[in-house]
Amino acid sequence: MTQQRISPIKTATAPARGPFCLVAGAVAFVGSGPGDADLLTVKAVKSLQQADVILFDRLVSAEILELAGDSAQLENVGKEGFGPQVSQEEICARLVAHAQAGLKVVRLKSGDPTIFGRLDEEVTACEQAGVAYQIVPGITAASAAVAGIGQSLTQRGRNTSVRFMTGHDMKGFADHDWAALARPGQVAAVYMGKKSARFVQGRLIMHGADRATPVTIVENASRSDQRVLETTLDRLPQDLAEAAFDGPALTLLGLAPRDSAAALYDLQMELA
Amino acid sequence: MTQQRISPIKTATAPARGPFCLVAGAVAFVGSGPGDADLLTVKAVKSLQQADVILFDRLVSAEILELAGDSAQLENVGKEGFGPQVSQEEICARLVAHAQAGLKVVRLKSGDPTIFGRLDEEVTACEQAGVAYQIVPGITAASAAVAGIGQSLTQRGRNTSVRFMTGHDMKGFADHDWAALARPGQVAAVYMGKKSARFVQGRLIMHGADRATPVTIVENASRSDQRVLETTLDRLPQDLAEAAFDGPALTLLGLAPRDSAAALYDLQMELA
Repeated sequence: MTQQRISPIKTATAPARGPFCLVAGAVAFVGSGPGDADLLTVKAVKSLQQADVILFDRLVSAEILELAGDSAQLENVGKEGFGPQVSQEEICARLVAHAQAGLKVVRLKSGDPTIFGRLDEEVTACEQAGVAYQIVPGITAASAAVAGIGQSLTQRGRNTSVRFMTGHDMKGFADHDWAALARPGQVAAVYMGKKSARFVQGRLIMHGADRATPVTIVENASRSDQRVLETTLDRLPQDLAEAAFDGPALTLLGLAPRDSAAALYDLQMELA
Repeated sequence: MTQQRISPIKTATAPARGPFCLVAGAVAFVGSGPGDADLLTVKAVKSLQQADVILFDRLVSAEILELAGDSAQLENVGKEGFGPQVSQEEICARLVAHAQAGLKVVRLKSGDPTIFGRLDEEVTACEQAGVAYQIVPGITAASAAVAGIGQSLTQRGRNTSVRFMTGHDMKGFADHDWAALARPGQVAAVYMGKKSARFVQGRLIMHGADRATPVTIVENASRSDQRVLETTLDRLPQDLAEAAFDGPALTLLGLAPRDSAAALYDLQMELA
């Protein structure tokens, strides 16, 4: 392949300044964060207030949808739950149709749309139809989960990289560079990792990971019904089965909650 | 090592509900996001409004500091810039002293404090002093950068994991699992990667990476002076030197900007 060099400096993607506003006939892909409405970005709140139509996912919480303007049309395109499933193709078609009808369209995705959000298919649909779009990043589940246990995803002298990964891909369980992940001090956030817990455990132990490696699973991160399971690699599948989480869960490999992480919560409860 | 199992289900870190408020005598570690004030979370805005004292970093933008309440005391503890440098020890000592004086303390860190934010040293200082704290996650630079070029950090059928890494650690250039990173379709976000660009390039090519692998560097992501450099692994060090970025820059390995990413910006400029 010959080396390519196109437009070495592009400045065109700089954001517009002045008050943020949605554009009629365009789509904003907006991250709704992990669930707590206070973890929306200001831009996400403005998007919800200004939208003519909002297509939202199953995992977007009710308290967030309440921020939509009175005249906004809300469309549930969640892949599970009540009502018939809306296919990815149908979602793409609706986004384009609404935009071409001149509406201010918000596509609300839980977490950060750029991380395990299946964003590309929808952006490509806009691109192919000549529909303008923008992406408003959101707080991803890993950030909320780790904040909730008083830890960091990276730490000087411990890990100079962190991985965000899924337990499965289109072909089944996803393969990763297990040998690197198995080393002491590594940290990874596994999205949608409940079903693949035993697989991930097996691969890591096979590649020499310490069975006592701390693992924390945070269900409903940032929400009022958040639950935290503190375990080790050794006991991960059993403890996870016992916890019987039914909400979205984020697995933090290599991290245990700080005991002090709960102190402020207790303080706030006293004050409330 | 014997297997350990402590408090398998902890619910204590669930966030307090009702209106968010800072607690006197406690520290809130707050992510200020990549620079655009509209990318603050609602919780971060409320924190700034309620704080008695705000300790902020060099990279926190002026438009964000303007959101602080009128009576808030602002302390620049940036590691560079005008005035004498404030050491990490001094920052920790000040956080604890302000909290013990009964103030509502905000420690404002650019991006997400849990990602390359040197958060742990300060949390540990609070912990050791018996000072309660909470962590408010922020939008990390990688999310803002990738949103600005119309791309995703993960994509079905392309990559089931993404790495956030630094080019250097305490001992010099940081080593990573280069062989895994060198594979086609891998995506990584390199923080503070300007100085290590040639090192990263060398390691990846040595491990078989395609020299034509797309690389995008986003300077001042989300800010009005954002600049995007589109290049390839082959030309990374030269093009980066030529661009002479002096703002914070985020390197996206494995991603090129979508041409369509600029369309909405142009539209908004027309409307403004």
